Amino acid sequence: MGKRIPVAVLGATGSVGQRFVQLLANHPWFEVAEVVASERSVGKPYREATDWRLDAFMPATAGELIVRDYGDELHSPVVFSALPGEVAEEIEQRMAREGRAVLSNTSFHRMDPDIPLLIPEVNADHVAAIEGQRKKRGWSGFIATNPNCSAIHMVLTLKPLQDAFGLDAVIVTTLQAVSGAGYPGVPSLDMIDNVVPYIGSEEEKMAEETRKLLGSYENGAFVDAEIVVSATCTRVPVRDGHTEAVSARFTQSGVTPDDVIAAFQSFKGKPQELGLPSAPTSPIVVRPEKNRPQPVLDRDTERGMASVVGRVRPCPIMGVKYVLLGHNTVRGAAGASILNAELFKVEGLLPV
Amino acid sequence: MGKRIPVAVLGATGSVGQRFVQLLANHPWFEVAEVVASERSVGKPYREATDWRLDAFMPATAGELIVRDYGDELHSPVVFSALPGEVAEEIEQRMAREGRAVLSNTSFHRMDPDIPLLIPEVNADHVAAIEGQRKKRGWSGFIATNPNCSAIHMVLTLKPLQDAFGLDAVIVTTLQAVSGAGYPGVPSLDMIDNVVPYIGSEEEKMAEETRKLLGSYENGAFVDAEIVVSATCTRVPVRDGHTEAVSARFTQSGVTPDDVIAAFQSFKGKPQELGLPSAPTSPIVVRPEKNRPQPVLDRDTERGMASVVGRVRPCPIMGVKYVLLGHNTVRGAAGASILNAELFKVEGLLPV
Amino acid sequence: MGKRIPVAVLGATGSVGQRFVQLLANHPWFEVAEVVASERSVGKPYREATDWRLDAFMPATAGELIVRDYGDELHSPVVFSALPGEVAEEIEQRMAREGRAVLSNTSFHRMDPDIPLLIPEVNADHVAAIEGQRKKRGWSGFIATNPNCSAIHMVLTLKPLQDAFGLDAVIVTTLQAVSGAGYPGVPSLDMIDNVVPYIGSEEEKMAEETRKLLGSYENGAFVDAEIVVSATCTRVPVRDGHTEAVSARFTQSGVTPDDVIAAFQSFKGKPQELGLPSAPTSPIVVRPEKNRPQPVLDRDTERGMASVVGRVRPCPIMGVKYVLLGHNTVRGAAGASILNAELFKVEGLLPV
Amino acid sequence: MGKRIPVAVLGATGSVGQRFVQLLANHPWFEVAEVVASERSVGKPYREATDWRLDAFMPATAGELIVRDYGDELHSPVVFSALPGEVAEEIEQRMAREGRAVLSNTSFHRMDPDIPLLIPEVNADHVAAIEGQRKKRGWSGFIATNPNCSAIHMVLTLKPLQDAFGLDAVIVTTLQAVSGAGYPGVPSLDMIDNVVPYIGSEEEKMAEETRKLLGSYENGAFVDAEIVVSATCTRVPVRDGHTEAVSARFTQSGVTPDDVIAAFQSFKGKPQELGLPSAPTSPIVVRPEKNRPQPVLDRDTERGMASVVGRVRPCPIMGVKYVLLGHNTVRGAAGASILNAELFKVEGLLPV
Repeated sequence: MGKRIPVAVLGATGSVGQRFVQLLANHPWFEVAEVVASERSVGKPYREATDWRLDAFMPATAGELIVRDYGDELHSPVVFSALPGEVAEEIEQRMAREGRAVLSNTSFHRMDPDIPLLIPEVNADHVAAIEGQRKKRGWSGFIATNPNCSAIHMVLTLKPLQDAFGLDAVIVTTLQAVSGAGYPGVPSLDMIDNVVPYIGSEEEKMAEETRKLLGSYENGAFVDAEIVVSATCTRVPVRDGHTEAVSARFTQSGVTPDDVIAAFQSFKGKPQELGLPSAPTSPIVVRPEKNRPQPVLDRDTERGMASVVGRVRPCPIMGVKYVLLGHNTVRGAAGASILNAELFKVEGLLPV
Repeated sequence: MGKRIPVAVLGATGSVGQRFVQLLANHPWFEVAEVVASERSVGKPYREATDWRLDAFMPATAGELIVRDYGDELHSPVVFSALPGEVAEEIEQRMAREGRAVLSNTSFHRMDPDIPLLIPEVNADHVAAIEGQRKKRGWSGFIATNPNCSAIHMVLTLKPLQDAFGLDAVIVTTLQAVSGAGYPGVPSLDMIDNVVPYIGSEEEKMAEETRKLLGSYENGAFVDAEIVVSATCTRVPVRDGHTEAVSARFTQSGVTPDDVIAAFQSFKGKPQELGLPSAPTSPIVVRPEKNRPQPVLDRDTERGMASVVGRVRPCPIMGVKYVLLGHNTVRGAAGASILNAELFKVEGLLPV
Repeated sequence: MGKRIPVAVLGATGSVGQRFVQLLANHPWFEVAEVVASERSVGKPYREATDWRLDAFMPATAGELIVRDYGDELHSPVVFSALPGEVAEEIEQRMAREGRAVLSNTSFHRMDPDIPLLIPEVNADHVAAIEGQRKKRGWSGFIATNPNCSAIHMVLTLKPLQDAFGLDAVIVTTLQAVSGAGYPGVPSLDMIDNVVPYIGSEEEKMAEETRKLLGSYENGAFVDAEIVVSATCTRVPVRDGHTEAVSARFTQSGVTPDDVIAAFQSFKGKPQELGLPSAPTSPIVVRPEKNRPQPVLDRDTERGMASVVGRVRPCPIMGVKYVLLGHNTVRGAAGASILNAELFKVEGLLPV
Repeated sequence: MGKRIPVAVLGATGSVGQRFVQLLANHPWFEVAEVVASERSVGKPYREATDWRLDAFMPATAGELIVRDYGDELHSPVVFSALPGEVAEEIEQRMAREGRAVLSNTSFHRMDPDIPLLIPEVNADHVAAIEGQRKKRGWSGFIATNPNCSAIHMVLTLKPLQDAFGLDAVIVTTLQAVSGAGYPGVPSLDMIDNVVPYIGSEEEKMAEETRKLLGSYENGAFVDAEIVVSATCTRVPVRDGHTEAVSARFTQSGVTPDDVIAAFQSFKGKPQELGLPSAPTSPIVVRPEKNRPQPVLDRDTERGMASVVGRVRPCPIMGVKYVLLGHNTVRGAAGASILNAELFKVEGLLPV
């Protein structure tokens, strides 16, 4: 590796923060130079401040970093944010004002009219909103966000269908993994021999984020796609990997499961064109088996960066239905922010 | 208890067979007099032949019964069948020919044009098919069936909606418990940290059984309801209790969640009218909490004989959506057969 | 039921507090008259203040009680305490000073030299310590405690062995249920596909509480039994029911598994003699099957008030080994306090 | 990679068979050339015959192999056996007679007086038994076995203690993962909200295999170590990774936890000396945290080839106690056989 761009991770000791540190450990372009966390951790080596829970050992170099305070002057031009929603607003905006590129996994700014909500395979052109954002807010840096962990995988699979057949409506039921709620997150008494059929705000996010993601950026404004999403979100006893049962209705008639499979399999986006380091070879992997995808088997497909689809078949009411699975803390969180940063780098938009 | 009607349980050593024995242990009308199982168990006391897995101790009197062979002459006029599909056909038909009332939980005869598929709260009038069945087949006894464990709970909740608003189409995703597959059933390697998004034949059963159950019996024939059901059935790491996310479309327009809740709460059927011993006071129990129903908390509501509903809310695509939960081996299997038998007794149709 | 003694439950909204309310719902002698909890809940009906998590519906009458503050003047002469350790000291002592009988499930006072740690089948004579406690502390009421949820079941099984064979040393490994840690308690990320081989302070408690419980009360002082306990405590993905693998060494030589089984099966204590309402018929239930006891099958044996034992066999190093299982929030917590209160009532020591 | 030695995998479609195929996929010395399985699979491509359950995709080249029959003439000089016990005897012996090196994970021949039971770090000198085995049986090939999945990890940690302090007795309780029972293996109804405190023959194997492994090979015969092992083996809801709570008694007195930790950390064996490809850098990894090792975090340490130890502390009865964790299908099964093969290769004992 040559000289890498120093990056800071905000909220570095939490679940998504740890995933950032893990995924960036051997990144060819970026290097974790600063870890920032709440008061309790400040001043300690990251190794001591963090109850590392992703595998046996945290990356050695990250472990030596001293945890910084949110108020500290950072030197990294690129910032990955895994901040809790309540504190994200002020800190992320300050970082952008200071000229940094803020790649945020937090929900706070996702629906702002001048902040892009990005999936590089889906709406890379929304990057154009950065210019207006800077002008309007007087920032030299910027904020870009990635979607909710359930929305991102669903939208990745909807994009080729929208392009090929026109998309009108989607009914989805999710079976979501517990890592989506962080640590300590979901109590084990809720998850042993049980399902919880509710996740706060999740169903609303799936509807509104989908419309923004599949919409356009025209004349300086985001225009929502006219797609109705009806979601039921549940929590199931799975560590990682959200499963989603999707029924899609198209504007075009006569769309068959084979048409849908073909659209999935031929789907490529900007990250694949550009060969971005974190890009999956295939953003959508179709499994032919009748009982796939399954979280424990399929969540690490393409290093967790792909959506895995199976059971594509007719829906007698909507058109076509299928089951998808995606890793919720890789492509559904930290990996999504990192792929966005890679896109910005290639676009020449990082302040480096 | 006065003198009770002797009953036989076919497939008595299996999961559903055990549930029959448990639920009938203190039944006011029926008494388990004969337990019948496969060759391996024949001649042994039920206590020894059975790996009892419902709780710590099997009912003491059942434990003393000697397991009978399927070919043995039985003396019980009423037979509960938990036979595996492949052997059900011949044995159940022979029992009916011999003059017995066969209450079957097996799928084999459910869709036969002269055999009722019954939920007493839903289609008690389908009992009338017995007469034609006897005539056509020359039987002095009869076969009546109860639905699949997922279909029964969904249909219990759909019936009041059909009556009140007209029902057109239903999209459902199930999260089903492992006990539905019997023992040994689903391997633990499929259920630790995992979901399996497929259950053989389940989606087809939910569609076709719903149409028969919500249909009519007219002029000596079943007429299917014109309701389209699109199901995705998944298996989750839960012992007992199927969760189902349902979106319903009505022929009547403007139906609100409050309308639906009112229909659920006022719903009563023949078992409630007749005060059948196994009837729940309320066949549908509505939970007001935003995160219910949950299997571990709600599956034993009304001794497992009710469907528990929550999260009734608008579906922007279909009309109204909700989550339901039902005990799959009580109301979803053995308890359903027993309630059917109770109805037949009150109707004077048991051969006793 | 005639007129029942009004009791207060401290910490009523938590896991153990809920279990108290549940077990007392139809108690013949006691009636929950006051529920006390932290500031957040004070002034609300118990129904609203409590996220009831034991089954579908909380007892209706308890639901109507208005939650009291810890500082409020109570009128109940008997108090069950499920207080968190840090606040137990001051409140429990004040209640005792005010003349109330405090039956505490909290660990704070268990090892005090003048406060009995009681299992009525094991050391009912330790009740005598109350007199000295009152004199020394100038209290008109008193505090009595019950053991840790793992210690109580082990000691219940050790008592007949101590009596029959003399007991020298015990090596035990526990596999403990998550409900022992309350709610939210153990995070699901620690319990899906995992075991945590550590529970804070648990191993120390098992050693020291065992010595006090199996010791004597002589000349106004507790004298520890000379028994060495070496414990390893682990947390496993089970809702309720602690499993323990025990190896015991006796002072008497030549003790066989059959001797041990005979001692278990003939064991009775004061609660059985007195016919206390919550007493199990058999405090120790021996399972003959080679693969029992199991939490999901056996934890509710004797309504959760018994210890269930299996796999009694020679230990080539210690003498005899066996596996035990006990319900950790019934006999291991709330049920233990209630049985203690029943003993005090019969002994004429309740202030009523 | 240069030219690799062709190897056959017997029982290739099962759980351990799949693990062999996975671990050998990129092995520098061995190449899977033949896959052999039962009649049902013979003649099909391995891809079709196998329900691959280790991750999303099986190794591509193995997938193309046509499954061979156990009776077929094989050309591979090295055979890895994951045969079920009942068929292992005849087939493994035939393969050895034909001149092949048979590295067997099956229990059948483990305790034979002329067949080595090997852990290269522990008893590499037992390889010497091959000569006598060949002579006695008239074989040009040989059979060598690796231990039971629980015994191997325990013995790996006992070896340095035996060497440093003398080892007298061990009490162990295991919490074993379900993958140890293969697929379908343990039913999910036994593992949701449950523990099964029994695994057939496991406790006996842990005792007798330990004595052979820690014993010597002298004058043409194995001499058991005089170490008493008392085991309780349980099954817990974990996919991979056996946890074991061990108490050890030494012949030397005054051994401290620090002594034990030092012995663990300095432990190296022949595989480390020889730099065998599958050898872990450290066969025993000591974790300093109070709540480790944990299966989900630590089982993949050293690619699943190490035993991970934590909680080393005094046992007031035995001497020192600790908790260990090991991957049961890597170092506990397929990986153990492969490491044995690597040792035989370096020793010049492979027929190639």
